[in-house]
Amino acid sequence: MSDEAIFRLDHRLASDTTTVGVLVLSRVLLMNDSRYPWIILVPQRAGLVEWSDLGVADRHLLLDEAVVVGEVISRLWEVDKINTASLGNMVAQLHVHIIGRRHGDPAWPGPVWGRGEALPYEPVAQSSLVATLRKELGCL
Amino acid sequence: MSDEAIFRLDHRLASDTTTVGVLVLSRVLLMNDSRYPWIILVPQRAGLVEWSDLGVADRHLLLDEAVVVGEVISRLWEVDKINTASLGNMVAQLHVHIIGRRHGDPAWPGPVWGRGEALPYEPVAQSSLVATLRKELGCL
Repeated sequence: MSDEAIFRLDHRLASDTTTVGVLVLSRVLLMNDSRYPWIILVPQRAGLVEWSDLGVADRHLLLDEAVVVGEVISRLWEVDKINTASLGNMVAQLHVHIIGRRHGDPAWPGPVWGRGEALPYEPVAQSSLVATLRKELGCL
Repeated sequence: MSDEAIFRLDHRLASDTTTVGVLVLSRVLLMNDSRYPWIILVPQRAGLVEWSDLGVADRHLLLDEAVVVGEVISRLWEVDKINTASLGNMVAQLHVHIIGRRHGDPAWPGPVWGRGEALPYEPVAQSSLVATLRKELGCL
């Protein structure tokens, strides 16, 4: 296997998040911003940028994993809407944001990106949340 | 069939776009904003808000249709990135944005929503673009 074929998490995604675990296809990351329930899925395949870079089966799997994440967010938090998005303008590596939105949250009804400063979790709260998410998602 | 089960396009989506045609599942809309190649897919089922409201087969089909739209955008325009997103904070009816982004476009590298005023197409250019999109997408 050549170096190019090894999955590596983009350094910016790594620095903005904490790892929850892995699903069949995706690494599950919790955005370190307690203003929103905000999870990022990164399919663990090298060289992906667009959805069209995934084969059909993996594409469907990534969507299924995103739907499960959205359902878990809706169970754990009171949210009014799930935002699901892959933008990739800042970080090219294919990743999917799943964000629970509430009427009156700091960016409502606009999108969350680039709005104000992230409000990091307290370490204890973050650890507890990660443990809960791992359990709810059945993450490895 | 009850009234509630009839698909109706949200009036705001209708007023911001022009219809390109229909795919197997989705109505294809061209956002009336020439600043970006910007297409919206609306699955033609009543009462949908979240991806999780779709059955698995329809969910996969909606994603496949979104991927095809992204590929057509990439063929017709010079774009650096495809943004794919379902937010639904303004319009609850489930819809998927597929937007071709370019380095240096008016919102780059931020998201497009809520940035400046839409720049409507000239009618002739819009008609021509709709015809091209219908052909490329194989729309009815």
